Amino acid sequence: MQFPKPTVEQFFRTYSITNFTVSKDESKLIFNSNLNGNMNLWAMDLPDTYPYLFAQQDQTSSFIQFAPDNSYVLSGFDQDGDENQQIYILPSKGGLPQPFITGSSEEKYFFAHVSTDGQRVYYMTSRENASFLNTHVRNIDDGSDKLIYEGKDGLTELAAVSKNEKSFVFLQAFANTYVTGFVKTGDRDYCLTPDPEKIHVTFDPVFVDDSTVYFVTDYESEYSYVAKFNLPKKEFSQVVSLDGESVKGMKFGKKQHALYITTENGVQDNLYRYDLLKDDAEKITIPVDVINQLYVTQSGSLFALGQSATVPHNIYQTNDNVNWKRLTNNTVLGISKEEMIEPKVVSYPSFDGMDIEALLFQASPENDNGHTIFWPHGGPQSAERKVFRAMFQCFINRGYSVFAPNFRGSTGYGSSFVKLVEQDWGEGPRLDCVAGIEWLFEKGISDREKLFLVGGSYGGYMTLLLHGRHPEYFKACVDIFGPSDLFTFVNSVPEHWKPLMERWIGNPERDKERFVKDSPVTYLDTMTKPMLVIQGAKDPRVVKAESDQIVAKLREKGRDVVYFVMDDEGHGFSKKTNEINTYKRMIGFLDQHRG
Amino acid sequence: MQFPKPTVEQFFRTYSITNFTVSKDESKLIFNSNLNGNMNLWAMDLPDTYPYLFAQQDQTSSFIQFAPDNSYVLSGFDQDGDENQQIYILPSKGGLPQPFITGSSEEKYFFAHVSTDGQRVYYMTSRENASFLNTHVRNIDDGSDKLIYEGKDGLTELAAVSKNEKSFVFLQAFANTYVTGFVKTGDRDYCLTPDPEKIHVTFDPVFVDDSTVYFVTDYESEYSYVAKFNLPKKEFSQVVSLDGESVKGMKFGKKQHALYITTENGVQDNLYRYDLLKDDAEKITIPVDVINQLYVTQSGSLFALGQSATVPHNIYQTNDNVNWKRLTNNTVLGISKEEMIEPKVVSYPSFDGMDIEALLFQASPENDNGHTIFWPHGGPQSAERKVFRAMFQCFINRGYSVFAPNFRGSTGYGSSFVKLVEQDWGEGPRLDCVAGIEWLFEKGISDREKLFLVGGSYGGYMTLLLHGRHPEYFKACVDIFGPSDLFTFVNSVPEHWKPLMERWIGNPERDKERFVKDSPVTYLDTMTKPMLVIQGAKDPRVVKAESDQIVAKLREKGRDVVYFVMDDEGHGFSKKTNEINTYKRMIGFLDQHRG
Repeated sequence: MQFPKPTVEQFFRTYSITNFTVSKDESKLIFNSNLNGNMNLWAMDLPDTYPYLFAQQDQTSSFIQFAPDNSYVLSGFDQDGDENQQIYILPSKGGLPQPFITGSSEEKYFFAHVSTDGQRVYYMTSRENASFLNTHVRNIDDGSDKLIYEGKDGLTELAAVSKNEKSFVFLQAFANTYVTGFVKTGDRDYCLTPDPEKIHVTFDPVFVDDSTVYFVTDYESEYSYVAKFNLPKKEFSQVVSLDGESVKGMKFGKKQHALYITTENGVQDNLYRYDLLKDDAEKITIPVDVINQLYVTQSGSLFALGQSATVPHNIYQTNDNVNWKRLTNNTVLGISKEEMIEPKVVSYPSFDGMDIEALLFQASPENDNGHTIFWPHGGPQSAERKVFRAMFQCFINRGYSVFAPNFRGSTGYGSSFVKLVEQDWGEGPRLDCVAGIEWLFEKGISDREKLFLVGGSYGGYMTLLLHGRHPEYFKACVDIFGPSDLFTFVNSVPEHWKPLMERWIGNPERDKERFVKDSPVTYLDTMTKPMLVIQGAKDPRVVKAESDQIVAKLREKGRDVVYFVMDDEGHGFSKKTNEINTYKRMIGFLDQHRG
Repeated sequence: MQFPKPTVEQFFRTYSITNFTVSKDESKLIFNSNLNGNMNLWAMDLPDTYPYLFAQQDQTSSFIQFAPDNSYVLSGFDQDGDENQQIYILPSKGGLPQPFITGSSEEKYFFAHVSTDGQRVYYMTSRENASFLNTHVRNIDDGSDKLIYEGKDGLTELAAVSKNEKSFVFLQAFANTYVTGFVKTGDRDYCLTPDPEKIHVTFDPVFVDDSTVYFVTDYESEYSYVAKFNLPKKEFSQVVSLDGESVKGMKFGKKQHALYITTENGVQDNLYRYDLLKDDAEKITIPVDVINQLYVTQSGSLFALGQSATVPHNIYQTNDNVNWKRLTNNTVLGISKEEMIEPKVVSYPSFDGMDIEALLFQASPENDNGHTIFWPHGGPQSAERKVFRAMFQCFINRGYSVFAPNFRGSTGYGSSFVKLVEQDWGEGPRLDCVAGIEWLFEKGISDREKLFLVGGSYGGYMTLLLHGRHPEYFKACVDIFGPSDLFTFVNSVPEHWKPLMERWIGNPERDKERFVKDSPVTYLDTMTKPMLVIQGAKDPRVVKAESDQIVAKLREKGRDVVYFVMDDEGHGFSKKTNEINTYKRMIGFLDQHRG
């Protein structure tokens, strides 16, 4: 029997798993997936792995937390991607989530911590402090609520609570690359690092006992590492660093005196077990290229949610750090891993000689249509890594090759590199893209007449900007919720992002000239190629007005712009039907302009 | 934490599993479920039980069949419940089903058999023989197609093919209770039973070798049993009967020389293993009350799809006929089995002294709202058994008790009993219902002022008829696709049902007086209670006109009738959203009229 080639729809008939948790007794695993069409919570009664619906909410869950005694489960939900997460509660046998710590639809309630006895829930809220957040504790039994910290100066997050609930670690963010941490104990605050004025990040703090905090920082280093702070001695010290790799997360295995450390090694992750007693880090082989979430149980099991370029999100478990069992079996409808394309990791010199790493997905000879899609990633302080993108694999199956450079500003290449996009959104990163395009031509990988441009979020911004400044390169462009005007963008982001804008983008008055130069709307006259613009009406990060304005202005000039707005989505997809419709349109648009 | 009582929605957040198959090497199980919102095929790579999407079609699958060498999978799909099933093919790794043996949207193509080498597919089609069906064989390699039998006299189905493909068993149906079987070998036909003129049924024939057919029949018996036919000797003989139980299905375990026999024992099923060599039937304990499908693998594993009144459809496996492993974990959202109500099996004497068995679901004292829902089942040659009905459990949770009698004409109580509804749709069965109602009052189970009436299909017909003839009993009635007029109904059923109408209902000319007496439309004047009528626009069995006409006529008279039509459903639900909407309306209607 000969069967037809896979179609667009098959690639998007893949379910996502965004986060999970495991009950203390390891009998139940709950995960967030769009298995039934919308995002909902599903559970499996381990070791049985057949999933059953655990909570019906039709919204993306931002966290899942068991009460320590399993008497309830907490989860966070927003409304259709508006990112106003609030905290819901439900019985540990599942059901319909009940509002627990919630407020008006404009407010945010972020979960922080639940006390060991399950009686007190710590959380942050935008209520009365939209920019910096306030931290409260809610008593479950009597519903009493206490403000315990008013955020100030920067976005302030409660990140760890000591077992005796007398010491708290707060993180204060001034930029993606500048986050300080302090322990608050009684009325006193102690910075986790020696000098909070030095630019560095601090994250993933954990109280290994009531007097010691372990955390991750890049304080005075190109790569983040594990450090600790001794509370009685007020003493900071480095614990372990991994050569050339940035620690991206850390979980504490209490019973084993071990830290499980995930690191970012360019486009893929590594996992290490660091023994606190032996001061020794051992590498653990992982079944995926990228780990999205790691969970260490009290008994010492590891659960990892991860993915690879040709394998969608799945949850894996190991009891011996060697043999991993895949608990889920999330696949692409009718398409095996072997039928998809692994990216090559390439690098090329940019305009100033700087080395830029990129992922290159080359269509197989029998599928190749001769065209390349240039994909500037979002963030921008993020990176294109070996993650599963149904969109890419679908493009490739249709014969397109895909090139995704980690231009300056990308994560995974050191603390200096990531800062290069700050207050320079439109120059250095753009020229890295241009150098990447020219490299594709030089190397004969792509044809100068056969290039498309597709990007989302910051990548959408870069798509607009490259289109406006270098239209000669592209046959057509797809902008997915990209900011079109830096002046309006910096004022329309969520309130709690605003404290970060100064360092990230700059000041629209002080930096007016640069804002003009780096805003896509400045280049309307040369934005002449056919364009598809995609936007979620509820997007709180890049608001719809950003797309509205550029679409209107281009249409005024008679340009060929298709505009597709989804009423019930934000900065991404929460509904399978929207996702499939969007990608069908995108493929249709590219195929049409391929000619 | 106190959580609110379960809501309507939770009960309907249960997924159905309608059928399944297992690959020959037992490495893959494929099942049909509405897990992602619509009916689609899912698979598990055994022993891993996490399901993945196997085929996206958004339609109910009527069968699933692996090629013997696993090189392809066949399945049947209709369009939104129109029951015009056609045959699709897909790769054994899954994908999008491709039309294989299909025709115009009005035609039906029923799968019959695939040859041992996977090259020939036998099927029946309504094309050119809508009433009786023609049987063809299609060659996979060259697409050639051959008519091998033209159905005549009754609906004719190819039910078994010998391994050498020289002998065929055809079943010929003249009524639900009159189905004869014959072996066709060369130009000769041999009836499986001694006298085809005697009323009996024949089903589940299997060639245990090229010369012996085992099958189920109730020839000269009140209860169906296993019989065999020796082809060289042309000899019929009884193999095994099970006292007071009707054999409802049979699977042959080739390697073990065993027949696995499911029997209907009133409202629940039993399973037996019959050893062909030892002539011995051994009872196997089953994990469910009702078995929907049994599958015996070549290695001797049993797979069973089954359910109970408080446990939805699940698939179970046993390798030793003792210990069953549940492969799926289909549950009700947030509601445990213990929180639902098991029915009591009761019986009462009818108007003529005949004993009628019924299921009585009594609301728990803390939920009881004092009202009872009377449910006449569909069929009518079917029965209310211990199956999972989300609708019932939801009614009960809302405080309603539910009473469902197996009036005369129901299956499971012998061959004579089931025939009592034939050519008597409206008298005996109706009086059994009336006796059941009076019994509920007499026994103090129900309150004379607090009775509702809800039924679907034949149960919808009975609802209309009871409403018209005994309105004093009911506060309000819900008719789900019930025939309203026997004259129009007998002419609007599917073509291939028409040969069955004579014996089942009668002849509208000859039996005019009875048709008038037994048609609900005759009693419009007394149909005075509020009514909700539910209908699928594509229903081929009880066409929309049946509901349209009674709704129009009652509205003309100013009666309170709510009419809810689903455009994309037939005689049941293929879409979760339709199911939930319907039951929400139903509960709302009952609650409103409870007062």
